Amino acid sequence: MLTDTDSRRHHPHAKSKTEIEKLRIRLGEEQRLCRELGIPTVIAFAGFSAAGKGYVVGDLGQALDPRGFTVHTIQDPTPDEELRPPFWRFWTKQPENGRIGIFIRSWYSSLFGRAKGYRSPRERVDLCTRINIFERQLADSGCVMQKYYLHVSRKEQEKRFKALEKNPDTSWRITKDDWRQLKDYDNLLALSDEVLMATDKPQSPWIVLPADDLRSSSLFLMETLAERMQTARRERAPRSTAKSPKTAKPKAAPAASGSALARADLKQSLSRKVYDRDLERLQDRIRILQHRAYRKRLPVAIVYEGWDAAGKGGNIRRLVRTLDPRGYDVIPFAAPTDVEKRHHYLWRFWINAPRSGHIAIFDRSWYGRVLVEHVEGFCTPADYERAFTEIREMEKEWTDSGVLLIKFWLHISPEEQLRRFQAREKIAYKKWKITDEDWRNRKKWDAYAVAVDRMIRETSTPSAPWTIIEGDCKFHARVKALKTVVEGMEGRL
Amino acid sequence: MLTDTDSRRHHPHAKSKTEIEKLRIRLGEEQRLCRELGIPTVIAFAGFSAAGKGYVVGDLGQALDPRGFTVHTIQDPTPDEELRPPFWRFWTKQPENGRIGIFIRSWYSSLFGRAKGYRSPRERVDLCTRINIFERQLADSGCVMQKYYLHVSRKEQEKRFKALEKNPDTSWRITKDDWRQLKDYDNLLALSDEVLMATDKPQSPWIVLPADDLRSSSLFLMETLAERMQTARRERAPRSTAKSPKTAKPKAAPAASGSALARADLKQSLSRKVYDRDLERLQDRIRILQHRAYRKRLPVAIVYEGWDAAGKGGNIRRLVRTLDPRGYDVIPFAAPTDVEKRHHYLWRFWINAPRSGHIAIFDRSWYGRVLVEHVEGFCTPADYERAFTEIREMEKEWTDSGVLLIKFWLHISPEEQLRRFQAREKIAYKKWKITDEDWRNRKKWDAYAVAVDRMIRETSTPSAPWTIIEGDCKFHARVKALKTVVEGMEGRL
Repeated sequence: MLTDTDSRRHHPHAKSKTEIEKLRIRLGEEQRLCRELGIPTVIAFAGFSAAGKGYVVGDLGQALDPRGFTVHTIQDPTPDEELRPPFWRFWTKQPENGRIGIFIRSWYSSLFGRAKGYRSPRERVDLCTRINIFERQLADSGCVMQKYYLHVSRKEQEKRFKALEKNPDTSWRITKDDWRQLKDYDNLLALSDEVLMATDKPQSPWIVLPADDLRSSSLFLMETLAERMQTARRERAPRSTAKSPKTAKPKAAPAASGSALARADLKQSLSRKVYDRDLERLQDRIRILQHRAYRKRLPVAIVYEGWDAAGKGGNIRRLVRTLDPRGYDVIPFAAPTDVEKRHHYLWRFWINAPRSGHIAIFDRSWYGRVLVEHVEGFCTPADYERAFTEIREMEKEWTDSGVLLIKFWLHISPEEQLRRFQAREKIAYKKWKITDEDWRNRKKWDAYAVAVDRMIRETSTPSAPWTIIEGDCKFHARVKALKTVVEGMEGRL
Repeated sequence: MLTDTDSRRHHPHAKSKTEIEKLRIRLGEEQRLCRELGIPTVIAFAGFSAAGKGYVVGDLGQALDPRGFTVHTIQDPTPDEELRPPFWRFWTKQPENGRIGIFIRSWYSSLFGRAKGYRSPRERVDLCTRINIFERQLADSGCVMQKYYLHVSRKEQEKRFKALEKNPDTSWRITKDDWRQLKDYDNLLALSDEVLMATDKPQSPWIVLPADDLRSSSLFLMETLAERMQTARRERAPRSTAKSPKTAKPKAAPAASGSALARADLKQSLSRKVYDRDLERLQDRIRILQHRAYRKRLPVAIVYEGWDAAGKGGNIRRLVRTLDPRGYDVIPFAAPTDVEKRHHYLWRFWINAPRSGHIAIFDRSWYGRVLVEHVEGFCTPADYERAFTEIREMEKEWTDSGVLLIKFWLHISPEEQLRRFQAREKIAYKKWKITDEDWRNRKKWDAYAVAVDRMIRETSTPSAPWTIIEGDCKFHARVKALKTVVEGMEGRL
């Protein structure tokens, strides 16, 4: 427990200059070895104003190769950041494999010290829960994480405020807010304590540093960090995410009759006449809804998944036809780029999280993890099993922050797919749409069907349900998708 | 010339429905072919408020595959964007090879219509010049560019304002500013005319669309765009940027005696005692300067180039040792990633342009183009020759916007390099620093020396001079680099 007077309690022993130099070399070595193994490291710093975060991070920076780390100082969200789900700004800043991300204040910024007002107890518990999920997700993907809390006594803090204020080069750093918080020291200390306890996890532990003696704390930091990086490095089982075929191959049983796909009635169709009429009506309607969504700052995310040749492209075109192009984005996803591969698999979707007032259309999505990556064995069975939880968690973060999330599975029969493949090969300007890979995927239809059924079962939640679009008749599919979006938006505007 | 009444002058002939459909298919085809060839396309739209930019872009979006383009609406810069050089926000948004970037208002936003106040004639001319440079750079790297100006008559504009105001869903779009600008129609039209003339270039032409009849204009747009993409595609000489060895090989003459490198006195050195004293003094000083730079919002960029083993890493460490880690970034550059390869070679440096109040340290830089890429033949001789101008232009954009730019060449003798290579191979924790590639590069010393000399000659400008750091004595090198930065910052604070 933190108390006003214990800030020297963990005092490490003074070290000789040689020992310090050895420690620096050791930490530099750990950094290099982690880089070689492609292990990302996250180091978060928290503590009251003037507790010395800048000092210890500066010291740490001297031991590390400056080319291998980035320091992020987290303040209140910028206007751009406020348009996105709250964790967006932390996901976008995650270090790529082999690099170190140093976060001053980090995702805890509104829980300790300088926050704009204090949050309610309920909000605090909620945020701690979400932080725990976030940190577990990062740790599960192989990220080393360590958090340092700089604990400063009231007396020492006051002394530092005065010193900073006296110096004309640093006086701007101390605000009225800081003095106000100093008065409230005891209360803030108790709140900090609560947060430390709620978020101290084996994969992302807190270490309290006595900030009254920064020099010793700084050495203690380096020692514990080197220790942690070494342990993580040694424990790291050789991960074979890339191409471990067969391991993840599901039994190729056809979709069970009780499954979502089996229940879909692919005979549903629309005549040209009804289609033209409905489409026009819905397109007029969605344009109006888009204006309203913009004014009311509603973020919308629409996910398109489906069989090859199910008609995703044409469906998306009809959806956006009357939309103001300034208010939507279609974001296609194929195999990850090398930069994307050096991050958590959800990273590339997080950085594209919808903005308030805008519509983000995902042409393929994070569900690739439980579809192609799983069926082709590009991820391990453990990655696959974990993915359902991870996806539900990400979607919950989005929808809790106000995102309207709509997910489509464009469903067609294998017979219809064959007809379309053959047709594409015949029409000159459509021929490019069909590749050898499409034919190869087709052979795995049953394995995919099992994967799709499980995906729909595991990731249909009240706030993020799947809608199956029966696609043998394109007219029906386009009208149904548009109608689902219109109804979804109407429910929120 | 634009006049109030000519907005129907370019009226294209009405087209039949079949012709329109053919046009759409053709444009879709061009998009696909350009994607296959990796050609990026930029389409910029300008015009008065309510001229119909949204309408024609919406129409265009229907003809294109929505997965292959992104629409950017350019407004006043956000607070984040204001921290960077003015063109930063346009560079970051450039489409990657094979994609289409549609810019509504674009880099012309402050020259036409809705700008916050009008700029002075001098500012306008200056901005047009900079735009011409920007567009030429993009075009030179293979980008197809076309600009459309939607020209609306005063009467029609007034009519549209009224219609938009009447509808509760769109009334927010019309502001007092719009009505004010309508009153000033004639003046604004003359200003637009001036801008169109100043920035109408073969590689990035303007096409005026009569906005009173949007339907016809929209078709004319598609026709001209398809035409332009086709021409660009056919004219495109097969570029062989990747590995065209030998072509660019310079004569391996040793550095001429009049050269910058030859003039460097590598005997300069410092004793440990003087070094310790000077280093401490300078490190104290730079920390204070960093605070001032932050308060005065001075952006600082420091470029480190130099021979292998010249001591860049150690030099950077001493530079940042006392700096507040929240205020600087060290950005290392190696071979471009696949995402970077799909952009202009300056793109990855532009997106890392320094922020006001921050220090960006580039560990290797855009000079790779005229060093390793040139010597190893990774770029064509034409790319190489163009690079000097391109680099001077980029640096001018930065320094004109207030960036303090400091460039270091860390120079050592070939003998000293050999000693260091050998030493590294002996010390266990330094061994990883030396690779076969280092030994290979060393054999090309003379070719690199010629390239370095030309680089320094061609890119030393009054606002962005090179400083050669004599590096055989590391103490001297570290103190000189630090001193140069301190003096540079003092000159600006």
